[in-house]
Order: sequence, then structure tokens, then C-alpha cells
Amino acid sequence: MALALSWRGRGRTAPNPNVGCVIVRDGRVVSRGWTQPGGRPHAEAMALEGVDAKGTDIYTTLEPCVHQSARGPACVDLIVAAAPRRVVIAATDPDPRTDGRGIAQLRSAGIEVVEGLLADEAKRAMAGFFTRLEKGRPHVTLKLATSLDGQVALPDGSSQWITGPEARAHAHVERALADMVVVGRGTAESDSPTLNVRLDGLANRTPARAVLTGDYSNFSKLQLHADKPVWQHLAEPGAIADLENVDHLLVEGGAGAAAAFIAADCADRLILYRAPILIGAGLSALGDIGLAQLDDAHGHWRLIETRMLGKDRMEVYERA
Amino acid sequence: MALALSWRGRGRTAPNPNVGCVIVRDGRVVSRGWTQPGGRPHAEAMALEGVDAKGTDIYTTLEPCVHQSARGPACVDLIVAAAPRRVVIAATDPDPRTDGRGIAQLRSAGIEVVEGLLADEAKRAMAGFFTRLEKGRPHVTLKLATSLDGQVALPDGSSQWITGPEARAHAHVERALADMVVVGRGTAESDSPTLNVRLDGLANRTPARAVLTGDYSNFSKLQLHADKPVWQHLAEPGAIADLENVDHLLVEGGAGAAAAFIAADCADRLILYRAPILIGAGLSALGDIGLAQLDDAHGHWRLIETRMLGKDRMEVYERA
Repeated sequence: MALALSWRGRGRTAPNPNVGCVIVRDGRVVSRGWTQPGGRPHAEAMALEGVDAKGTDIYTTLEPCVHQSARGPACVDLIVAAAPRRVVIAATDPDPRTDGRGIAQLRSAGIEVVEGLLADEAKRAMAGFFTRLEKGRPHVTLKLATSLDGQVALPDGSSQWITGPEARAHAHVERALADMVVVGRGTAESDSPTLNVRLDGLANRTPARAVLTGDYSNFSKLQLHADKPVWQHLAEPGAIADLENVDHLLVEGGAGAAAAFIAADCADRLILYRAPILIGAGLSALGDIGLAQLDDAHGHWRLIETRMLGKDRMEVYERA
Repeated sequence: MALALSWRGRGRTAPNPNVGCVIVRDGRVVSRGWTQPGGRPHAEAMALEGVDAKGTDIYTTLEPCVHQSARGPACVDLIVAAAPRRVVIAATDPDPRTDGRGIAQLRSAGIEVVEGLLADEAKRAMAGFFTRLEKGRPHVTLKLATSLDGQVALPDGSSQWITGPEARAHAHVERALADMVVVGRGTAESDSPTLNVRLDGLANRTPARAVLTGDYSNFSKLQLHADKPVWQHLAEPGAIADLENVDHLLVEGGAGAAAAFIAADCADRLILYRAPILIGAGLSALGDIGLAQLDDAHGHWRLIETRMLGKDRMEVYERA
């Protein structure tokens, strides 16, 4: 349950992790919390607010923080003051300001601590936070919507529609879970995509938008978006490291931008939507990634999820 | 069980159907049979040979034939003489020489007949027989082994290996289940594929081989195979209708041959082996199929099976 709550904040809490928290007394949930947009209050603070947590079990997807902040108290101090019986933690916090000290302080206060429960799932839910700490850049998902033969459009560029409404709706959820969405210059010019979230109740979850300009100069068509100051320019995939408050990045194509992120080893997750159609001669999903020999292509990806979305098949791959 | 037995004959019984048959007395299997290579004996004749079948239940994947042949008796006559209690039939025989008359004769003889049990699975197992009767040509499977982005080779043509040993072994089983395998001229020239079955115990199941020559002339490299008179030339996909004793055809590429079969509406089944790799700029799986607009691509295919083969994912699509 805490993991499900953590996903509520995904894409809205950077640079803070999107944590989920549940407080349980005698087998009944007495309170829940998740990191709020902008990063505060933290999940534990939200869950503890106005609740008598003495003797309870607190489940949290990340080790509680120990550092004071002008924006709120340290969660460890809040928990110690609340005097629960036990704290169950999914993932330890690699932030050097916490990094095990949260668990140590809870134990010093006589609170039982269980760690590592569903840690992989928690790291997946908070992938942006962990990628930022480990690699100094956002977590990057590359989205491809293709035919069975890997084409994304007819030769004239037409791509409406390859996938069905269920897959397209799912792709909008992916947008809602990202802090920023990126397209290449060609896609921005030819499609003028809005890249917004067109799902009931999630319209306010449209992420920030960026264009990968690469080597290009005179990106004149971007004047189309001159009234939308949210559009940013990225000179290269590596430039994403400098983005502020962006921990989850979604790359939506086209083939050149997708290839640039692969070639720069800046893609952590692939989401493929595959329609049960054949296109034949058309536009391939991926441009030149600089692959010299087939051996070098192996060992990088593994399938972690697959299911049907209407008539289309979704597959999610992560780094192997 | 009868269905499983029918698969034993697949690719070796044309133009006869690959039928499976099981005889059961008091819940115990007393005999089994399947259509033998070349088409005779029939499955029922094999199962009944030397067995007292009086009062038994006979399960067969296809309605027993009623027509006499110089090569053997009509199965209906054999069954009536054996006097079983009941005959359970998966699919009725669309051959105009039988077409329900087998069932009628059994019932006239006082034998209970159940029809339609697992009929779709039986038609899938004997797809070549049914396609030949319905469309006047063999059943065609198109095999594609690709990366996640739909590429079948690097720009220089190298494709060893995209898929792993499990998927490649499975592709050899597919060969063993075909009466004939076809490649395009380019593949025959550049790869000189042996197209044989390299699986222990199945080496004698290598199918006949053909090259799709299309508009080409002077197919000089085919002299490579001058010592192999089994290689045939097909001027176009439609020429498969004239092939003798070929009810199951496997098309193994390349992109041009695959596209020719799709464009000619001569493909009934797709088998995709997809490795968890990205290739980027390379050779696409499918050439020009003459698709004018995306709407025309939809509604032709549906997924009927998917599973892992080692690290690769297999998908089977049939006509929707």
C-alpha cells in the first residue's frame, strides 16, 4: 500500500523522493501519507499529522530522513516523538545526509526496524531519486510506439494511429509520471506535439517540456512555442544532468532523439507499445546508435513487464 | 492427446491431413495413431491395426474419410467394422468427398458421434490441409527474428546472432513442421543458408527448399545449389498454389521475400522472435508491402501465443 501511495507523487516531488507511508494499529490502517508536490511535506510527516501513532507499525518506502530543513522537520525526529512499536522500511536512503543514520537513530530510540522489504519495487517507484544520486542525472524512459515490424510511421511521416486508444491512454499516464518530456527537433517541427496529459482528472499533471536540439542551429520553428516558456532546449542528452527539479524524464522520439539517448547511454527504461499491424517500408523507431557489431548489443536490457492494452501489446524493459 | 499426435505428422503428410487418433476403453488408452509420412496409413487405420476396438471410444482430430483409395481403405469402413461405442471428432472434413458423410455413416451404423470438440485447435494443427481446401494454396508462416526495434541485421548485413540458442532451436522445430521453406534471392545469395533442421533426432525432417526469384533473371549464385535438386524456384508468392505435396510453407526472409508474401496476401501466420537488444540503423524486417495508409494496416492480425525462449520473446500472430 505504501508503494502504491509513493506512485501518487511520482513526477512531482523532485529533487525529493516520492515516498509512501502507511500507519497500522492492530491490523488496521490508521493513516497514510505520500510526498506532496514540490517535495514537502514528506510522506511520514503527512501520515503522522494529527494521529496518535504510539505503539503502531509504520511502513515507509524509504528510510526516514535525519536532516533538518528550513522546509520541515527531520522525519526521524517526528517518528521518535510518535513512539511507534516498529518501522518497516523498503529501501535505505543513499542520500549521504541520511544513508543508514535514520535507521540507527530509530533503533537507538528503542524502535524495532525492519529493512529491505520490497526494496527493488521501492527503488523502481522512486527511480528518479536513485538515478540522480547514483548517476547525477534523471532517470530516463524511452517510449516507442511501433508496428510489429518496428516502424513508427509511413514514409510520409503519418503515424496516426498506430496504437489504439488504450495504449495511447497508457502513454498519457507515463507522461503524468514524468517531471519532463523530451522530443527531438524533427518531431517538434513536424508534429508540433502538445505533449500534454489528456486524461480526465490528470490534466494538471502535464510535465515540463523540452526539445533536443543536438547539433542544430537556427531552430526557427520553435518560435511556434515562443508563448510556452516551459519548453527548454537540450543541446545533448548529457545536458539533462543540469535540469533542475527533473528526476523522471520521458523521451517520446523521434528516431534521432531516441538514438541520441541510447548512444549516450542515457536511457534506463524502454516502454514499447506494439500494434498488431505490419507497415513495411516506413520510418524505423530508432536512428543510428553507433552499433559496431551485434555482440555489443547484447546484455543491456531485460523484460520486466508485458501485457495487453486493448489490441496492442505493452512491454517494459529495464537495464539488465 | 490426439491433437498432440496429429502434430507428429505435420509437414510430412501433404496432401493428406495430419490427423491424430486415440482409442480408449474404460478410461485407458488402448491404442494411438497418426497419419504417416506420405499420407498413409491414416491415423485411424494405424490406431485400429491389431486392436479389438469393440465398445471403445475413438477420438480423432478429423472426421473419418468415406472415400476408397488405391492406397488404403476408407476409415469409416474400418471404424464401423471395429464397432466402437462412440467416436469423438474435433473438426469435420471439408473435403467434398467426405464433408459430413463420414459422420452420417457412423451414425447410420448405430455409433454415437460427438463433433466439434477442440475444433479450432484441430484446424490449427492441420492448417495446411484446411488452407489448401479453402484457398487453393499452402498455409504460409512468415518467420521474423528481430531486435526490439524491428531490425534483422546491421547495415553490413551481419545477423549472427540476434536471437539466442533457444529461439534458434525453436525456429528449427518450425522448419521440421513445414513441408517447404522459402527464402528470397538476396538471402540465398548472401547467406547461402542450408535451411536444414539441426536438432538431434530431427535431422531427417529438413523440408524441401525454394527460392523466391520474383522479377529477377540470371540467378547465377543458385548454381551453388546445383547439386541440390530439391531447391525450387518460385516466380511469385502466388506460385505456391502449384506446389505439389506442400501444405505448410515457411518463409524465412529476407525483407523483400517477406514483403512479397504480405503484399500478395499469402501469409497466414507470423512467428516473431525478438531479442532484448537495440540495433538502430540497420536492415528492417520487412520491405515495401504497398501500404497506402495506416487504416489499411489494422484488423489483419491477432496475437495467439507469446512466451519467453531464453532471453528472447516469441510471439505468434494469426489472421484476425
